[in-house]
Amino acid sequence: MANFKGHALPGSFFLLFGLWWSVKYPLRYLNQKMKSNCRSNQCYQRLELVEGILKAVFALVGILAEQFVPDGPHMHLYNGEDKSWVKLMNWQHSTMYLFYGISGVIDILVYSPLKVPQGLDRLALFLAVFIEGLLFYFHVHNRPELDQHIHSLLLIAVFGGSITIFIEVFLRDNIVLELFRTSLAILQGTWFWQIGFVLYPPWGGPEWNQTDHENVMFITMCFCWHYAAALILMAANYFLVHCCLKREKRIMGEVEIGIRKLKPDQNGVEVALLNQSDEE
Amino acid sequence: MANFKGHALPGSFFLLFGLWWSVKYPLRYLNQKMKSNCRSNQCYQRLELVEGILKAVFALVGILAEQFVPDGPHMHLYNGEDKSWVKLMNWQHSTMYLFYGISGVIDILVYSPLKVPQGLDRLALFLAVFIEGLLFYFHVHNRPELDQHIHSLLLIAVFGGSITIFIEVFLRDNIVLELFRTSLAILQGTWFWQIGFVLYPPWGGPEWNQTDHENVMFITMCFCWHYAAALILMAANYFLVHCCLKREKRIMGEVEIGIRKLKPDQNGVEVALLNQSDEE
Amino acid sequence: MANFKGHALPGSFFLLFGLWWSVKYPLRYLNQKMKSNCRSNQCYQRLELVEGILKAVFALVGILAEQFVPDGPHMHLYNGEDKSWVKLMNWQHSTMYLFYGISGVIDILVYSPLKVPQGLDRLALFLAVFIEGLLFYFHVHNRPELDQHIHSLLLIAVFGGSITIFIEVFLRDNIVLELFRTSLAILQGTWFWQIGFVLYPPWGGPEWNQTDHENVMFITMCFCWHYAAALILMAANYFLVHCCLKREKRIMGEVEIGIRKLKPDQNGVEVALLNQSDEE
Amino acid sequence: MANFKGHALPGSFFLLFGLWWSVKYPLRYLNQKMKSNCRSNQCYQRLELVEGILKAVFALVGILAEQFVPDGPHMHLYNGEDKSWVKLMNWQHSTMYLFYGISGVIDILVYSPLKVPQGLDRLALFLAVFIEGLLFYFHVHNRPELDQHIHSLLLIAVFGGSITIFIEVFLRDNIVLELFRTSLAILQGTWFWQIGFVLYPPWGGPEWNQTDHENVMFITMCFCWHYAAALILMAANYFLVHCCLKREKRIMGEVEIGIRKLKPDQNGVEVALLNQSDEE
Repeated sequence: MANFKGHALPGSFFLLFGLWWSVKYPLRYLNQKMKSNCRSNQCYQRLELVEGILKAVFALVGILAEQFVPDGPHMHLYNGEDKSWVKLMNWQHSTMYLFYGISGVIDILVYSPLKVPQGLDRLALFLAVFIEGLLFYFHVHNRPELDQHIHSLLLIAVFGGSITIFIEVFLRDNIVLELFRTSLAILQGTWFWQIGFVLYPPWGGPEWNQTDHENVMFITMCFCWHYAAALILMAANYFLVHCCLKREKRIMGEVEIGIRKLKPDQNGVEVALLNQSDEE
Repeated sequence: MANFKGHALPGSFFLLFGLWWSVKYPLRYLNQKMKSNCRSNQCYQRLELVEGILKAVFALVGILAEQFVPDGPHMHLYNGEDKSWVKLMNWQHSTMYLFYGISGVIDILVYSPLKVPQGLDRLALFLAVFIEGLLFYFHVHNRPELDQHIHSLLLIAVFGGSITIFIEVFLRDNIVLELFRTSLAILQGTWFWQIGFVLYPPWGGPEWNQTDHENVMFITMCFCWHYAAALILMAANYFLVHCCLKREKRIMGEVEIGIRKLKPDQNGVEVALLNQSDEE
Repeated sequence: MANFKGHALPGSFFLLFGLWWSVKYPLRYLNQKMKSNCRSNQCYQRLELVEGILKAVFALVGILAEQFVPDGPHMHLYNGEDKSWVKLMNWQHSTMYLFYGISGVIDILVYSPLKVPQGLDRLALFLAVFIEGLLFYFHVHNRPELDQHIHSLLLIAVFGGSITIFIEVFLRDNIVLELFRTSLAILQGTWFWQIGFVLYPPWGGPEWNQTDHENVMFITMCFCWHYAAALILMAANYFLVHCCLKREKRIMGEVEIGIRKLKPDQNGVEVALLNQSDEE
Repeated sequence: MANFKGHALPGSFFLLFGLWWSVKYPLRYLNQKMKSNCRSNQCYQRLELVEGILKAVFALVGILAEQFVPDGPHMHLYNGEDKSWVKLMNWQHSTMYLFYGISGVIDILVYSPLKVPQGLDRLALFLAVFIEGLLFYFHVHNRPELDQHIHSLLLIAVFGGSITIFIEVFLRDNIVLELFRTSLAILQGTWFWQIGFVLYPPWGGPEWNQTDHENVMFITMCFCWHYAAALILMAANYFLVHCCLKREKRIMGEVEIGIRKLKPDQNGVEVALLNQSDEE
């Protein structure tokens, strides 16, 4: 779908996942650090399962939408009369969604009792992102300079993300890698929107001169600003999560102290334990 | 052999190994997980030895075939009269088989009592795959666009596989890497067949337009579909192995219980052990 | 700022950091090796904090300078009248400083009591260096051969540095990586100066022939010499630090022995301990 | 030195080191495996020191030779009259030797009592090889197809070697990596000779057609054969070392038994120990 919506939709998808991860990973990390046991490991596994199901459902919806929109291929691949392929763009997008769907299904299998090896969920996500990059890479041949450039910047985010996820196969639950992946997902999301705005201005307006080198230079810089914005957004979410957890812990502590006041004879040992966990 | 058979043969070879691995690795992994001790570690080492011997034999047959087919070079490399090389294609294929042969020989040495360092078998396989990629890379110069593209997609599978195997030198027996390698082997196998069908349609039929960009786009997508099919095939094999092992274990358990009923005096400790191993 | 100063300034910046690191890292390493406890781990953490603050301040100054120099953009990005971008070069440099600023801020956060995960400081530095490289990479299109070549050699130092720092995310406090990074920072610093001298000779003089292949070959070699000089400089600093620490230790030892002579009754055990630590 | 000797000399240098390594590394590995204590760890450290000294001396000789051969630059870099560089080829080769010299010096420092961090010797070797590759890469611009191709194949060996050595910084004393590096050093050595034979036939003879694609294909294959030969040579050395160590151990065992027969009263415990070490 070579129009504004065709870029805004996948952009929103990546943005959504990026924002959700920018809350989830700090939450898990800070929970572990603060040793508040209100959220267990099992709880996070259930979250991953939900994420997997969502991914699979989204992918299915995406495939169906790409196929059955009014100007879609309706599952026809080859037109025997014209001897030409039918709507290859939509088919390519369907293919991309297919691999995100596979990634979702493997997430589900890993957290089900089927003993599927754990690293496979990261490997499947790596494959989905890599294949997205592969399809994009062969997608932008024979286009004007600015068009090619703006897409090749996207490829930096895509392949950067896929390398990060591949490393995660071996260094699972590494908070730095997870936050890096999150930032690249947000970057991808906002950059898809940016591509839409540049190539298909939604409210009309003058078109960009596609061969002006100044424009290419501005777009490169703009890409960096998007990333800076993504980092600032993540930092904001991190501190929000930090504050929430701190307040929650304080309330929990007060409740505990309140409970203890009612049973003063068991107090001695517990206060000592509480002090210990505070010092850590 | 620039014809259909010349692509179908190596394709079948990779497909065979890929399918065999897609059974072997889940079997070993699930055996370890389920702690059923019916298949020992030693048994797997013997399998590796057999695999190595097969690889070496296949490679030898391949070299001989490439040399002594009716239109082969018959070990002649240079024609002094014409001042030209004799059948370089066949020589290149022989070279490729040679390195798979070396890999097979090193497999044999590693599992023999010669104290050859273990990682060398993976390194030799990495070299064989890398050299296959190298030969291919310089193979497709000066060809039409579609021909180049369809071969460069193959290179993704080849070099992806070689990187994976290189990592396996250091992370041996990592199930995720092994399954990834397996999937790339299957992909290579089916893609060789696809190349044959596209470039040398076996049952005649209209030829592909080698310069149509639409065809290039379709082929890229088709490559992804092959990979999706490989993943689904592997998943099917995984679950088959899983079911087989489960049934086998149940039968073994029943047999054990039957045996125990005959010797009721030793029963107490064993039941406790059995329960333990079930809970794990 | 396409002039001599515009290359000398960032060059000095990198040189400064490189030289400082070439003292800091050997100091920390040798302190640990010699087990002299005059400088604690906490002291190094404070140093990192100071480094972070300096980096952030430098970056802020850099951004302001690039914006508000007499011929700067003064925060104007787009000129509506001419329909053209305003001083994109200065904006690009501001962007580069921005990411070094972010890196500085994250350094501060990591060593503050906010429980920010440690690897993030390295990741942020990696990002700053990578984005510097990215901006440079798209910076030198459509330039004469020598200009392109001299900048692409810089990219080797920049991307080499960014890969090193990325590895440091996982292998923190690895002295070999830190020294390698230091050497690349010094190389970058001196190479910026070299670019200034070649492209904008500060004292007039004949210009370089930008299309002579001999010049390109000389510049490649010159780049290697810069690196050799950087290595020699680092070696000199290493040995200086080594000598200082040795002398300091000797003086400390003498002082200790002096103190002990005054309290001869506690002497026995301490001498034994001293001997032990000397032998290590 | 664009002639046969100019390629034969560095070729011999790499071949020498490769062959020496193909004995040294199996020797150390098998010694450890067989737990024969006739060669201590200290002995290997002294060997490394000797290797470093040799490397530094060779490099010094190389630099002096390149500078002071009759048609060398004699330390003149720039000819003010002609406004041209003097003998840049020789200067480039000197630069290459310089970095191997630095690598030799760092080897010496690492095994001296100066507490230089151990990984630095590998890093310096990595740098020497990388800079050799860098100089080569910018060396072969504007040459005929065959010339470029034959040199770019060399770069595969050079950069492959440099990556291997970089990994060795972190995975020191890994026998697989060491053997891989060894094989690439031998390959580099023989390939330098091959380049000499192809581009500057030493005994006259017909010249190669530099633009014939068949020749390019043959050279690619020939490169693989060189590597196969290097592997076979290494295997031969490995087994030679294996046999020598086995025989030596048998003789040592017999000597020990002979000694013990003279002192029968201490015999009991020692025989038990001997049996143990045999079983391992």
